[in-house]
Formats: sequence, C-alpha cells, structure tokens
Amino acid sequence: MAKLTGKAVIAQGGGPTAVINQSLVGAILEARKFPEITKIYGARHGVRGILEEDFIDLTQATTHNLERVAFTPGSGLGSTRDKPDEDYCRNMFRIMLAHEVRYFFYIGGNDSADTCRIVDEQAKAASYELRCIHIPKTIDNDLVGTDHCPGYGSAAKFVAHAYTGVNLDVRAIPGVYIGVVMGRHAGFLTAASVFAKRFPDDGPHLIYLPERVFNPEQFVKDIQDAYDQYGYVVIAVSEGIGNEEGKPIIATLKSGDGDIEKDSHGNIQLSGTGVLGDLLADLVRKNTTIKRVRADTFGYLQRSFFDCVSETDFHEAREVGEKAVQFSVWHDVDGSVAIVRVGDYAVQYDLIPLTDVAAKTKTMPDEFINEQGNGVTEAFKSYAGPLIGNLNPIDHIAAPKVHKIVQG
Amino acid sequence: MAKLTGKAVIAQGGGPTAVINQSLVGAILEARKFPEITKIYGARHGVRGILEEDFIDLTQATTHNLERVAFTPGSGLGSTRDKPDEDYCRNMFRIMLAHEVRYFFYIGGNDSADTCRIVDEQAKAASYELRCIHIPKTIDNDLVGTDHCPGYGSAAKFVAHAYTGVNLDVRAIPGVYIGVVMGRHAGFLTAASVFAKRFPDDGPHLIYLPERVFNPEQFVKDIQDAYDQYGYVVIAVSEGIGNEEGKPIIATLKSGDGDIEKDSHGNIQLSGTGVLGDLLADLVRKNTTIKRVRADTFGYLQRSFFDCVSETDFHEAREVGEKAVQFSVWHDVDGSVAIVRVGDYAVQYDLIPLTDVAAKTKTMPDEFINEQGNGVTEAFKSYAGPLIGNLNPIDHIAAPKVHKIVQG
Repeated sequence: MAKLTGKAVIAQGGGPTAVINQSLVGAILEARKFPEITKIYGARHGVRGILEEDFIDLTQATTHNLERVAFTPGSGLGSTRDKPDEDYCRNMFRIMLAHEVRYFFYIGGNDSADTCRIVDEQAKAASYELRCIHIPKTIDNDLVGTDHCPGYGSAAKFVAHAYTGVNLDVRAIPGVYIGVVMGRHAGFLTAASVFAKRFPDDGPHLIYLPERVFNPEQFVKDIQDAYDQYGYVVIAVSEGIGNEEGKPIIATLKSGDGDIEKDSHGNIQLSGTGVLGDLLADLVRKNTTIKRVRADTFGYLQRSFFDCVSETDFHEAREVGEKAVQFSVWHDVDGSVAIVRVGDYAVQYDLIPLTDVAAKTKTMPDEFINEQGNGVTEAFKSYAGPLIGNLNPIDHIAAPKVHKIVQG
Repeated sequence: MAKLTGKAVIAQGGGPTAVINQSLVGAILEARKFPEITKIYGARHGVRGILEEDFIDLTQATTHNLERVAFTPGSGLGSTRDKPDEDYCRNMFRIMLAHEVRYFFYIGGNDSADTCRIVDEQAKAASYELRCIHIPKTIDNDLVGTDHCPGYGSAAKFVAHAYTGVNLDVRAIPGVYIGVVMGRHAGFLTAASVFAKRFPDDGPHLIYLPERVFNPEQFVKDIQDAYDQYGYVVIAVSEGIGNEEGKPIIATLKSGDGDIEKDSHGNIQLSGTGVLGDLLADLVRKNTTIKRVRADTFGYLQRSFFDCVSETDFHEAREVGEKAVQFSVWHDVDGSVAIVRVGDYAVQYDLIPLTDVAAKTKTMPDEFINEQGNGVTEAFKSYAGPLIGNLNPIDHIAAPKVHKIVQG
C-alpha cells in the first residue's frame, strides 16, 4: 500500500515553554526526511493560523536558523488561547483540505489534544485521510497517559533555582517568604521547589498544593511553628489552591471579587497578578507577630526563562517532535505521543489514543504529598529528580564559633 | 616599620547578591596568605554579629568548603538591615578591641561604607590602629566612585534573561506585559532589560526609570502607541518610579496608603509585594481597549537567583575581596575598593576614601536615558554590555509566508 502523501501542518496551542521550539524543530527536521511529506507548513498562532490560512513554509527555513530557534524559549510560531469547537474544527479542516494537508501535528496540552481529536473525527467523517498527532507540552505536567510532559523539567528547574536563591536570601535576612508558583489544578511545578533543599534546615519549609484543601488557619499555624523552629520560613504555594468547595483562595480571601479578572471560560485570572501573594502575606502579618513578611509571584518568568533548561527536558522535547513524525508516517496512526519511563532514568516513546489525553487533567498522586498536606515526599523526588537534572551543590560555611570573651 | 598585626573581621550588610560570597571567599583566602592577619573571623548577620560578639573562625574552614560557598548565592555569613549610629559603632569597636582585631572588612552598599567610615573615625579618635576597608556590592549599581558594582552584572543578566523569555512569551500570545524590577533611586537594573532586544520589534518596547518623572497619562499613551505599532507591548518599570514631587507612584496610585508597609527609616516597602505592578496593569486596562494585560513583580528572584551569574561579575566580585586584603596589608590605608575601567573591556582596582562612597547614591547619567524618558541609549548598552556578558543568540523563524488559496 502506498504511503499517505501530502503536506504537513504544525502549530502550537496554549502557554509557551522553554523547550517547545525543540519539539517544533524536531518535527520539522524529521518531516523533511520523508518523501511522503511534500512540504511542512507552520500555522501562525495555533489553530487560529489554520482558520485564517496564515501559514509559513518551514520547508524553506535553513537548518542553522531552525537550530537556533530550537534553543529559543517561547513559541516560535506564536500560540493561541482559542479552544475550537466542532464548527471551528470544520473550518480548519476545510483549509487543510484545500492545501492537501495529510499530516497535522499540534503541540500543546490537554486542550490541544482535544482539538486534534475533533479534527481527526471531522476528517474521518469526511472520509479524508489525515494523520492527527498531538505532541505534548506543558509546564504544569498535568497530561494523563504520559509519564511526564516536555516543558515541565525546565520550568521545574527554574522553580528549584529560584528557591535555592530565595532560601539563601531569606536565611541572610530572616523573615517569612511566600512564593506563588503556577499551577491551577496540579501541584507538580510548585512541588519542584523541594529541590532547593540541601541541608535539613533549608527552605522551602512548607509547600501548599491545589490537590489539598487550603486552610488559612492551619497555614498561619504551620508558618508560626516553622518560624519558631528555623528562625525563618520559606513557603511555596500553588496559584490554584482552593477551599473545601474548590473555590480559589484568591477569591475567598478577597473582599468582593469585583476586580478579579476572569477569562472567556469563567476561570479566575491567577497569573500576571500579585494579588494572591499579597493576600497571603497580609494573612500572616495580621495573625502572627512576625514582622518581615514578603511575597513574590513567579508569574511569567517561570514559563520561558532563557537559559535555564533541563538537559533531560531539552532532549525529550526534541524527541517527541521527531517521534510524532515517525509514528505518523511509519505507523499510519493518529494519537498523542507519550513518554514511558523504562529505566532509572531512561524513557521510550509510545503513541496513545487522543481520547486518552484530550481534555483530561492529571494531578499529583497521593504518595507524592505528605500526610499534613504541607510538603512533598521522597517518592515525588524520585519521580521528578531525573526530569530536572542535578543542581550544582550550594554550600553553607563550615567554621567553628568563636568563644565570647566580652559577653561570654 | 613593622606591619600592623592582629585579627581580621569580615561581615556583610544589606541585601544579598548572587556573587557576594565570591568577595567573602576572595578576602578570606587572601587573608590567609598574610602572617600579619593572625586569624580571620566572620561576623554573623553583619554589624549585629560584631555588636553581639557572634563570630565564626573562618581560618578553620576548608578551601573546598569555601570554594563551594563562593559559588553559592546569598550571603554565607548572613546579613542585616541595621544602620549603625555613632553609639552602635562605639560598641562594635569595643568588641573588636577586645579580640585584638586590626583589620575590618565590610561588604555592602553605601550604608555599609558609611558604617566603615564611622568605625574608622572611632578607631582614630581612640588612637587604635585599625584598617577599615569597604568591599562594594549591590545589585542596584548605585555606588559612587566605582565604575560599577559587583552584584550588578549578575542581577542584570537575570533581568536580561527574564525579558528574553517574557518578550517571546508575550509575542506568542499578544497583550501588554509589565515587569516591575528592583531599584528605588537608580534605574541601572531595569535598564538591563534592553539586552533582551535582538530584533527591532522585540521587547522591551518601553523602559521607565526612577531618574525620570513618571506620568501615568504618558505611560498609557506610550503603551497604546507601541501596541498599535508592534501588536504587543513588553514594559520594564523600576519599582522606585515617582511623580514630580518624588513621591513613589505606588503611593500616588493607591487610594489611601494605609496598608503600604514602611520600614524603620519611613521608606515605603517596594519589594516583596505585587501592588505596583497590579496598579499599573489596572491603569492600562481602564484607559485602553487592550484586553490582555499582565504584570509581574520580579521581587527576590532577581537578587540571588541560582546559576545565572555573569562571568565578569563572578571574577570581579572575587577580585574586590582579594584587593581589599592586599590594600589593607601592603598599603596600610583605609578606604573603599573601586573598580576602574581601563579598557574595552578591562578593569583595575583602586582604593578610594570612605567619605567618597559613604551614604551617597549614584543614578543613571542623562546620556544613558533616551529623550522621551521611556528607554535607554546605545551609550548605556556600551557601558553595561561587558558587565553582563554575551547572551546566547535567540532567533525568530525565517521562513516565507504561504500564498493563501482559500482566502487569498
């Protein structure tokens, strides 16, 4: 049987990461090796680029340019927050048909996998043979079906580096430090702060995740206890922490949520604002006697910081792009590329059904969270460690105290 | 004449940096080479450690431990915000006398230089021979008398890396992005965001510095103009921007400043809160039709982020520590170590009077700021470029647009 021959379209949806361009370039360079793929087009700003027939011909990019783009964070093609419905997909499909597109690669999270699923169904309904492959990416690591997700390791490394510095900073001038890390439903990224801990008294001393109900009274008590024990407290909090009803804490702490921005899906804006951090800092100031309380919101810095990339992540992001093309041509199947952990540490790649990934969210399993719900376990560290890679060792000064002769 | 012989005390004051431990270790290892320095003690938490006779004997630290500490951000000895007056210095001096301290090295900014100055005067008044050397550090680069300041290059590199990522992130999902960078009086650190710009349309498109009066109406207009021109806007703002009377914008925009924290000197708390960023974002939302407006406050991340160190800064921080000891022993003089730029790029070190540096603040010279007061000049880039070092080149995809066949 002759292989399916035609053009390929590649695009990216959702938030950028530090390594998404590795997946892009992996797919482009791999696609160029196959005669079945006559050209590879990039759609600008995700599915919107397909809808608006806004393509660039990546077949005509140079290898040097692409290799430099691979090292560039962000999304080289641009991205979109559009969440296509059936109609939107039908219109996309019409454009792809006109350009004789036979391969569709979409780099993104669970929404992007869902887009692939709908486009795939449209094509099947029209008896148009089209390979739809979802290439995973997310800093949140919240995709089901894959051991972990490209983009996570590098963002996690950023969080670990940030907390390494912050822990030492707050040790030097003691007080309470609250860092707000991205993660609406999954705490994997916030949990990565634990890798800043080298000595038993290093921070972060407390980690709060969206997988556990957030109790403001317990939060204040935990902080006071840790302060009494260590003389300073470093805390990592997921932006998505919520109360028992699942209502975001940012909304419960704020008197009236009139000026809290909501997106088109009614989700409260969690990133790009310092409100949650400031509210939590106020909570500590008002309910303890600790004077120096600071809050930072990591915001967009953690998503595509330059030159803070995990080596594992870097290579795997490239490989999921390459494998997407290989699966589509050699195996003639649709699906989502999944990473399977086969060794400590080694992976291989699999293609799983789009329906397994589409619109589903993975959260931290119970064994990764401590009993008190304010920290993570060794099991989490075993899981996430290889994804982030080794951090260079920091050190404390090891020197004896001098005997007091005046005040002794 | 016999050289002055006795113990040395080293300490650090003010905010930590990514390379302050390089200066510390440079001084310790150099001090160990001189028989005149019988022991080198570290005071814990700056001058407070001297006052409380809280010393550790750094002579008994291993070289390996110290070299690892040198690579560790933050302040290995701990720091303090104490600003000693004459009385405080008299008591410090009494403790130093008891321990037969003849060399005092203090790593810090202009307040720390002032502390050195007062201690030096006390010693002279008591006819007690004591070498007082100030070792410069600050991320703000606001010390007079030195070409630039250790700590600045690495913090500036962090800001450049952050804006490199943020520019690409906001290009991918267009909108307005406001980043609030540290700097109460001097804009050097905020200005470093310019190094994220590679292509003419890259951000940051607008940079606001404390050296210029901040006009909210002009700010909104600048943003609308840039948005119309580029389709997205990335902005860098110093936390210290103020109005015509020099009042911080954070106070003028906030209705009633009841919940704005002030420190013991009456300074409004600028760092460790997202308030200014959120206020500026609201200003843009309310006065333009741009929907996606995000603000991040870089906060403590920029001060001692791990593993984002400028090579120039790294070496110079070490050298100012070494030179401090050499000046004190070989030249028998007090003063502040200054960096003199003697080539493009090369430096040498000088010792300048403590009174030249103490309690004085350097700000950005006029030739570093553009005429409109919303950007920086090539002169600034020539000045700051070598301090930060080369950034790896990012790239945009260079590929031709595909001709539209459906909507063409």
